[in-house]
Amino acid sequence: MTTTSIGAYRPLAQAKLEPEIWRYLRDGDDGQNERAFAAQRIYPRPLCDLRGGHTHLDLFGQTLAHPLLLAPVAYQRLFHTGGEVVSAMAAAAQGGQMLVSSLASQPFSDIFAAGRLDNGTAPWFQLYWQGDRERSLRLLQYAIAAGCSAVVLTVDAPIKLATMQLPGEVTAVNLEVAVQPEPTFQGSQVFDGWMAQAPTWDDVTWLRQQTTLPLLLKGILHADDAARAVDCGCDGLVVSNHGGRVLTGAPAAIDALPAILRRIEQRVPVLLDSGIRNGRDAFVALALGATAVLVGRPAIWGLAANGALGVAHVIRLLRDELEMTMALAGCARLADIAPHCLVAD
Amino acid sequence: MTTTSIGAYRPLAQAKLEPEIWRYLRDGDDGQNERAFAAQRIYPRPLCDLRGGHTHLDLFGQTLAHPLLLAPVAYQRLFHTGGEVVSAMAAAAQGGQMLVSSLASQPFSDIFAAGRLDNGTAPWFQLYWQGDRERSLRLLQYAIAAGCSAVVLTVDAPIKLATMQLPGEVTAVNLEVAVQPEPTFQGSQVFDGWMAQAPTWDDVTWLRQQTTLPLLLKGILHADDAARAVDCGCDGLVVSNHGGRVLTGAPAAIDALPAILRRIEQRVPVLLDSGIRNGRDAFVALALGATAVLVGRPAIWGLAANGALGVAHVIRLLRDELEMTMALAGCARLADIAPHCLVAD
Amino acid sequence: MTTTSIGAYRPLAQAKLEPEIWRYLRDGDDGQNERAFAAQRIYPRPLCDLRGGHTHLDLFGQTLAHPLLLAPVAYQRLFHTGGEVVSAMAAAAQGGQMLVSSLASQPFSDIFAAGRLDNGTAPWFQLYWQGDRERSLRLLQYAIAAGCSAVVLTVDAPIKLATMQLPGEVTAVNLEVAVQPEPTFQGSQVFDGWMAQAPTWDDVTWLRQQTTLPLLLKGILHADDAARAVDCGCDGLVVSNHGGRVLTGAPAAIDALPAILRRIEQRVPVLLDSGIRNGRDAFVALALGATAVLVGRPAIWGLAANGALGVAHVIRLLRDELEMTMALAGCARLADIAPHCLVAD
Amino acid sequence: MTTTSIGAYRPLAQAKLEPEIWRYLRDGDDGQNERAFAAQRIYPRPLCDLRGGHTHLDLFGQTLAHPLLLAPVAYQRLFHTGGEVVSAMAAAAQGGQMLVSSLASQPFSDIFAAGRLDNGTAPWFQLYWQGDRERSLRLLQYAIAAGCSAVVLTVDAPIKLATMQLPGEVTAVNLEVAVQPEPTFQGSQVFDGWMAQAPTWDDVTWLRQQTTLPLLLKGILHADDAARAVDCGCDGLVVSNHGGRVLTGAPAAIDALPAILRRIEQRVPVLLDSGIRNGRDAFVALALGATAVLVGRPAIWGLAANGALGVAHVIRLLRDELEMTMALAGCARLADIAPHCLVAD
Repeated sequence: MTTTSIGAYRPLAQAKLEPEIWRYLRDGDDGQNERAFAAQRIYPRPLCDLRGGHTHLDLFGQTLAHPLLLAPVAYQRLFHTGGEVVSAMAAAAQGGQMLVSSLASQPFSDIFAAGRLDNGTAPWFQLYWQGDRERSLRLLQYAIAAGCSAVVLTVDAPIKLATMQLPGEVTAVNLEVAVQPEPTFQGSQVFDGWMAQAPTWDDVTWLRQQTTLPLLLKGILHADDAARAVDCGCDGLVVSNHGGRVLTGAPAAIDALPAILRRIEQRVPVLLDSGIRNGRDAFVALALGATAVLVGRPAIWGLAANGALGVAHVIRLLRDELEMTMALAGCARLADIAPHCLVAD
Repeated sequence: MTTTSIGAYRPLAQAKLEPEIWRYLRDGDDGQNERAFAAQRIYPRPLCDLRGGHTHLDLFGQTLAHPLLLAPVAYQRLFHTGGEVVSAMAAAAQGGQMLVSSLASQPFSDIFAAGRLDNGTAPWFQLYWQGDRERSLRLLQYAIAAGCSAVVLTVDAPIKLATMQLPGEVTAVNLEVAVQPEPTFQGSQVFDGWMAQAPTWDDVTWLRQQTTLPLLLKGILHADDAARAVDCGCDGLVVSNHGGRVLTGAPAAIDALPAILRRIEQRVPVLLDSGIRNGRDAFVALALGATAVLVGRPAIWGLAANGALGVAHVIRLLRDELEMTMALAGCARLADIAPHCLVAD
Repeated sequence: MTTTSIGAYRPLAQAKLEPEIWRYLRDGDDGQNERAFAAQRIYPRPLCDLRGGHTHLDLFGQTLAHPLLLAPVAYQRLFHTGGEVVSAMAAAAQGGQMLVSSLASQPFSDIFAAGRLDNGTAPWFQLYWQGDRERSLRLLQYAIAAGCSAVVLTVDAPIKLATMQLPGEVTAVNLEVAVQPEPTFQGSQVFDGWMAQAPTWDDVTWLRQQTTLPLLLKGILHADDAARAVDCGCDGLVVSNHGGRVLTGAPAAIDALPAILRRIEQRVPVLLDSGIRNGRDAFVALALGATAVLVGRPAIWGLAANGALGVAHVIRLLRDELEMTMALAGCARLADIAPHCLVAD
Repeated sequence: MTTTSIGAYRPLAQAKLEPEIWRYLRDGDDGQNERAFAAQRIYPRPLCDLRGGHTHLDLFGQTLAHPLLLAPVAYQRLFHTGGEVVSAMAAAAQGGQMLVSSLASQPFSDIFAAGRLDNGTAPWFQLYWQGDRERSLRLLQYAIAAGCSAVVLTVDAPIKLATMQLPGEVTAVNLEVAVQPEPTFQGSQVFDGWMAQAPTWDDVTWLRQQTTLPLLLKGILHADDAARAVDCGCDGLVVSNHGGRVLTGAPAAIDALPAILRRIEQRVPVLLDSGIRNGRDAFVALALGATAVLVGRPAIWGLAANGALGVAHVIRLLRDELEMTMALAGCARLADIAPHCLVAD
C-alpha cells in the first residue's frame, strides 16, 4: 500500500465516488473544526524515557487498543459495496471500537458480528429517535438483541435534511419504516412537524430506564446540557457539532470541550467528534480532556478508496501519528496527555 | 421552484440584470457586515420541547407572522417590471411587513394596497428628507393619505451619490421634484450644499409633531444618537450602516447593536438592517437584542430572478431558516432568543 | 474629466510609466499602512447642523484651505515632464501646501514660485542631510534664498538604496554633488560608510540654530524621539515610515501616532505621512490627533496620468472625500474631528 | 553576481535541484515561523551616532564576525557536489561559524579543515544520538579527533522519517552504520522501536561527562527543558522547531524564545534556529534575546544555486541586512539590540 498519509485518501475517495455522493459526504465541512485544531500548538518534550508506552484505554469496562473510534456514519453502502460490515471488520482488526448508525445499510447482527473484538467486545449502537417512544424502544431492543455493547443517542440532528436522493438499493434496513414528519394542518412545519418527532429531556430520562448498557448522548456543545445529561444518568457524552452538518455557525466541537469538562468535573467520560483529520488532532482533543475521539470522514475516505483495507489503514495511520505525537510530546500513556502539553493562549 | 437556498438567487439575479444595474445593487457591499455575522457562534440546545413554537410578533400594535421586514429599496422597477407592487404582494402573502421607499417607482397607494395584510395592517413609509420642512411635510402627508401605517425617517444618507444614470422610465413618481442641492456661490458644496438639504435634530422634533403614526429613525449607529432619538419621542430605531453604501468604514450594524441596546434600556424596539443574508443572521441579530430585521439585497435578488414569487420564496426561505435555527438553539418563541444563545467572545 | 476616484488614477499612472519607474514608485508598499487604516471604524453621526463647515487650518501662521499636503517625492520629472513645478501649481490652485524634496529635478526657485498661494505662502523645503554641516547648510541657505517657508529634515532614510538607475536627463539639480559614501578601508560599509553621512541629534541642535523658519523632523515613529525633537526646539513632527520604503517591518505610521501624541502633549503640531489613499484615511489620521497629512503616491498617480490637472484633481477628490466623511461623522470643522469619532478597539 | 536578495536564491535553487530533492528541502516549511517573524515590528530610531558599529561577538571564547551560523543540514552533497566542504569554506570566508551534521556526506576532517577561521576556530559538531552510549561516544570521539570546537546534541528528531530515498553516492560517511530501529516482537514500533533509540536526560548527563568542549542542546522549545539542560551542565541551547520538519503544530521557535529566556535568566547563551530568512529576522531574534541565530534553508539555496560563492553571498546579504536593520534601529553593537527595539504587543 503506497499511500502513507490520511489526506491522500481524500482524492482517492473523490475519484471513486459519484459526484453527488461525494458532495453529500463533504457537505457542511466549512473548515471551522479544522481551523480550531490548527490553532492549538503542542510542545515537543524531548529526552523522556518512553519505553513501554502505548495507547490502550479502558472505556466502560471495554479494553481498546486506541482511543480512535469510528463515528456512526449512515448508509455506508453508498461509499463501498461492503458497507458497514467492512468498516466493522477494519475497526476490529485494529483493536478499536465502532459506532453503528441507526441508518446502517446492513443488518445490525452482521455488523456487530464483524466488529466484535478478540476480547469479545461488540460495537456500540447509535440511536436516532424514531419519533415516539414505542418505535424508539423497538429499534433499541432490536439493536440490543443483535448484540451491541453500548447505546449512543444522537440528539443534535432532529431535522434530517434530505440533501441527497438515495440510490434504491441503499436503505436503512434496520428501521421499521422511514421516519416522516406527519403532515400538519396548522402550526409550523419546523416546530410542530420535524421537532415534534425529536426526543426531549423527558425521553432521555425514560430511555435511561430501558437499558442497563452504557448510555451516551451525542451532540452536546453547551455545558448546561452536559451537566443535565449526567444528572439524567447518562454514562458518557460525545461533544460534537455533527461535522458542521446541522447548525451552520455552531461552535467547533474542540472549542466547546473545555467548558463542558470544567462543568462535569470528570463524572463521566467525554468523547470528541467532528474535525479529527490526523493523529495530531486526536492528541489535541485528548490534551484538552477528551477520553477518546470519533473519526468520521477520514475513515469513509478509506472505505471508498479501498474497502476494509482502506479503513484499517486510515485507523493505523491515525494511531501511528498519535503515537509519534505522544512520543515527541513526551507522553508514554494516554493519561500523560494533559493541558500542559499545549501552548496556553 | 427548484432553488432551495437564498444564496442561489444571487447569480439568478445577476444573470437577469443589466451589468450597470447589478453593480448599483451590489455597490458598497464590502463583506464587512457578513464577516461580523459569521464571527458569531450559536449554541445548539437539543432535547427541548418546542411544540407550538412560532415566529409571530407584535410591533407597534401590528401582528406580524415573522420579524423579517423588507427594507426600503429605491426604484424597484429597475429590478423587475412589477416593481414595489410585487414586492409588497410577496410580503403580504408571507404575513410580513414592508418599508416603502420615498424613491419608490410606483404610486404609494398602489404599493400600500398590495402590501396590506389580512389583518388590515398596511406597509410602512420610509421618508427621505426633502430639503425643507414644507416639502417634507407634503410628502409625508401624501404617504399618510395613501395609507401607510408607520413612518421611518432615513437619517444616514443625506448625500445621494448618483452612482448610476436611471433609465428614463424609472422615476421617483411620488416626489414633487427631485431634490437637487442649490448651486452655492461660496462655501463648501458638501457643507453648504448637500448637507444643508439634510434634516437636523430640530427637524426630527418637528417631524414628531406632524403625525401620530409610529415614527422610527433609520441609520443610527452611535448610542448617543439612539438615546437622543428616544428623547425626541421616536417610537423605534433601525440600526443600519445602509448596507455599507454611505460611509466607507462605518462599523458593521450588528457590531454597533449591543452598545445601543444597553443605552436605551428597552424603551423602544430596535430593528437591525444591513447584512442579513439568511435566517441564521436574523437569529444572531435577535439574540443580540434586535426586535426585528430588515432584508434588502436578498429580497431584490428574488425580485429580479422571479418577481413576486421570488420575493415570497426568499422570505419563506429566511423564515424556514430562522425557525430551524430557533429549533436547534432550543427557542420556541422570539422572546426565547437571547444573548446566552451565542458563544460569548 | 471622467475619473471620479483616486484609486482610478493608479492604473492610469501605471499605463503611462515605464515598468521600471512604476516599480520604483510602488516599491516598499507592502499594504501594512493600508491595513492599519482599514482597521479603524468611523461612527456616522447624522442630523447635525453643519452649515458653514470647512476644512481650513492655520499651520505655522500659514492659512491653508485643507490639511492635505503634498509629500516630498524625489525626481518628479520621472513621472511627468512638468516635474515638481506642475505639482506645485496644482497644490497652489487647490489652496494647499507642498513639500519640495532636496532631490527635486527642477530649480527650487521655479518650484517655490509655482507653489506660492494667493495669500503669499510659499512651499516648504524638505532637507536631506548632505553628509556634513557645511554642505547641508549651503543647501539649506540655497533653498531659503529661493523662498521656502518652512524646513522639514528627513531623518529616516540615511541609506539611499539605489533601487533604480535614473535616466540621464533627470537629476537632482539643486544639489552641489550627489552624496556618495566615502570608500572606507576598514570598518563596516553600513556603520562607517552610509551612516557616517547621516545626521545625528547634535546636528539637529545645530540645524535649529541656522534658521528661524519653522523646522520639522520627518520620519519619527518612537515617542522618545518625538519628545527629544521637541526638546531640541523643533516646531513640528512628521510621523512617517517613509511609505514602507526604508525599514521593512517598521510599524505603520498611523499605529505609531497615538503614543507619540500622548508623549508630546500638544506642544507642537504632528503631521502624518505614509498610507493616505483617500479622504477617509485623512479623517482617521486627524481623529487620532494629526494636525495634517502628507499625500505621496496618490498625487504622483495624478501627476503621471495627467500632469497638473491630475494632481489638482487628486487633491480635490481627497478634499471632497474628507468633507463628506466629516459631514457624515458630524464634524463641521477640523477641530471637531476627535478620537470619539472612531470606534474604540 | 547580479542576485541582490536572499529570496532570489530560492527559485535559482529550485531550478537546479531534482524535484524530489527540492521537496525534501522544502518539507515541513508551513510558513508558521515566517508568520511569527513578520508579526514583530521594529522601531526606526534615527539620528543616533553609530560610527564604529559592528556585528562581532564572542561565543564560548570564539570570536565571530557575525551571529549568523550555518545550521547543521544533512547530506549537503544532495544540493551541490562540493557538499559540506564548500559550505564550510563559505562560512569561514565570511568569518562565521558552521554546525556540521552527524549526517554529513563528507569526512569530518575535510569539513572542519575547510571551515577553520583565520583565528583558528574550528566548526561545531552536531551529534545525532546513535541509539546507545557506546556508538554515540565513538562518533563523538571521532568528531573531536577531527577537530570540532563544540558539540551540539540534537534532541528533537528521535524519529528519522525517511522522506526520500537517497541517491547511492550520497551517504553519511562518518557513521559506523546507519541507525535502524531493532525489529520488535511486541510493543509499539514508536515507543519501543524508534524512541528506544533516542537519548534521554540520563544520557545528556552522561554525555556532559564525556567532553570538555562546549555542549549545547538543539531542539528545546519548553522552558522546563531549558532549565533542566542548564542544570545538567549544558553550555548553551538552540531553540528550534527543526524548521517545522518534526512535530507538525509545534510552536514557532521565535514564539517560544521569550519564556525560555525568562526561565534561564542569562545563565547560558541561547541560539535561535528555524525560520531565519533575512537579516531583519535575525535582528528580531536578537532583540528577543537570542545570542546568535542558525541559518538553514537560505544557505542551502545559495549552495544549490552557486556552490561556495552562493553560500558566501547569502551570508553576506544576511549580514548586510542585519547591519542596515541595526543602523536604522539605532543599534551600533549586538548588545544594543534589545526588546525595546520592538513594538510591544
